[in-house]
Amino acid sequence: MDLWFSERHTPNVKFSIRVDRQLYCGQSEFQRIDVFESKEFGRFLTLDGYMMLTEKDEFIYHEMITHVPMAVHPTVRKVLVIGAGDGGVIRELTRYPSIDHIDLVEIDPLVLEVCRKYLPQTSCRLDDERVHIRFEDGLKYIRTRENEYDLIIVDSTDPFGPGEGLFTKEFYGNCFKALRDDGIMVNQHESPFYEEDAAAMQRAHKRIVDSFPISRVYQAHIPTYPSGHWLFGFASKQYHPVHDLQAVTWNLLGLSTRYYTTRLHTGAFALPAYVEELLRDVE
Amino acid sequence: MDLWFSERHTPNVKFSIRVDRQLYCGQSEFQRIDVFESKEFGRFLTLDGYMMLTEKDEFIYHEMITHVPMAVHPTVRKVLVIGAGDGGVIRELTRYPSIDHIDLVEIDPLVLEVCRKYLPQTSCRLDDERVHIRFEDGLKYIRTRENEYDLIIVDSTDPFGPGEGLFTKEFYGNCFKALRDDGIMVNQHESPFYEEDAAAMQRAHKRIVDSFPISRVYQAHIPTYPSGHWLFGFASKQYHPVHDLQAVTWNLLGLSTRYYTTRLHTGAFALPAYVEELLRDVE
Repeated sequence: MDLWFSERHTPNVKFSIRVDRQLYCGQSEFQRIDVFESKEFGRFLTLDGYMMLTEKDEFIYHEMITHVPMAVHPTVRKVLVIGAGDGGVIRELTRYPSIDHIDLVEIDPLVLEVCRKYLPQTSCRLDDERVHIRFEDGLKYIRTRENEYDLIIVDSTDPFGPGEGLFTKEFYGNCFKALRDDGIMVNQHESPFYEEDAAAMQRAHKRIVDSFPISRVYQAHIPTYPSGHWLFGFASKQYHPVHDLQAVTWNLLGLSTRYYTTRLHTGAFALPAYVEELLRDVE
Repeated sequence: MDLWFSERHTPNVKFSIRVDRQLYCGQSEFQRIDVFESKEFGRFLTLDGYMMLTEKDEFIYHEMITHVPMAVHPTVRKVLVIGAGDGGVIRELTRYPSIDHIDLVEIDPLVLEVCRKYLPQTSCRLDDERVHIRFEDGLKYIRTRENEYDLIIVDSTDPFGPGEGLFTKEFYGNCFKALRDDGIMVNQHESPFYEEDAAAMQRAHKRIVDSFPISRVYQAHIPTYPSGHWLFGFASKQYHPVHDLQAVTWNLLGLSTRYYTTRLHTGAFALPAYVEELLRDVE
């Protein structure tokens, strides 16, 4: 079967995956949702035609957005996750016995339903009793919260479409307010490589820097995202992502990981010169 | 113009670049050589249809294969570069006043000729008086050298076709012999992500580990190579790539770089857990 899914990473760059078959295709109030089966990447989820995750490399994204803050903050108990209807972040968070409450705020119920059915690899822990699912717009939900969370993970789509509001100054300011005095916010931060992604990354960084006293960016290799060079933002009221890393404590938890290590944690904050410059330009 | 260059990263994954026009197409004794002009990446060079370099991201590869060993070895004077007919490694090496002799051994004269004409961005320093170009098979050249070089950079193509011999145990053993007592060899080490590349990476690593007392692997984000996650091998008789990093000395040189920094140097050796495991399996 010669069936290919393609995504334009820019108008002039295309990444294509050979597909065995389409498992699901649907349209929600917010977006088009597709799930495909492929030989190279296993199953993969797209929203409005944009790659969200593949079974082969989702561990990289989910480990890096979860374990980096968890290895810095010594006592995370209450977590807010925005977006993330696929459940990958929840799967990683529920591995920590110290966490006793997770609010998952996802705007689109159909994403969750589709992932429960077709992507058990990521959605497998959505029924954990500590997880409280709310189908709401994260932008609105966060407005009313105050001094409540130890950690907020913003697992948004791109800064256009349904995820747009999750890249605004108002949203980051409200996240700051919703966090406790030693809270941390982590978000997916786009890529530095292609021009348009880099501009989105700079805009987001500027707004976070304006809202949080500590704001650092870290990177990972995510082969199915544009350029494969992906960034995350670490914003914090008190803890420094590298100086306050609790490496011994985290390793004593005995969590087995495939990408994250506490050594890589520190390395991930060492950015290429051109990325440092892009960030400095807006700080 | 809807003209696309595509490379199969695996039989099931394709990376495509929109092309403005083909600048050159030729066949040498060894391989097919093409140069294209594109909006997204500027000019790019392919050998037998495989991406070698683009003007947009070649700085990453060339900085990382050159400055990492140069920032560790305090007194590199004589260097051997194998492959690298595009001149990118030479451009970076000639920035060091301490280097007084560079042997460039390239098997294919036509690659050099084409790069001189169409890729001045990388070939610009091939006429430096310290550079001695030899059109020979690197595998044969190295057999006769002994205790001669401070640094050998193996800028090979992939481990099939003309570059195949540059991934053998015999070759690495001869590199060891050709190096001085505190010499370093650096090579491009393929990618850990797709199965076939990972196997090639493991084979190369095993052979290097067998030949050198110190052998470490480091990584970079190279968007136009398969998966974007590329590895380099650092093999050495004496210097450790991280513990012996001469950060202050290197920074005093005042070289301006776009990817490499001495902070990133250390970070680049912090590999993902699954890559560490792949390497450990063959150590």
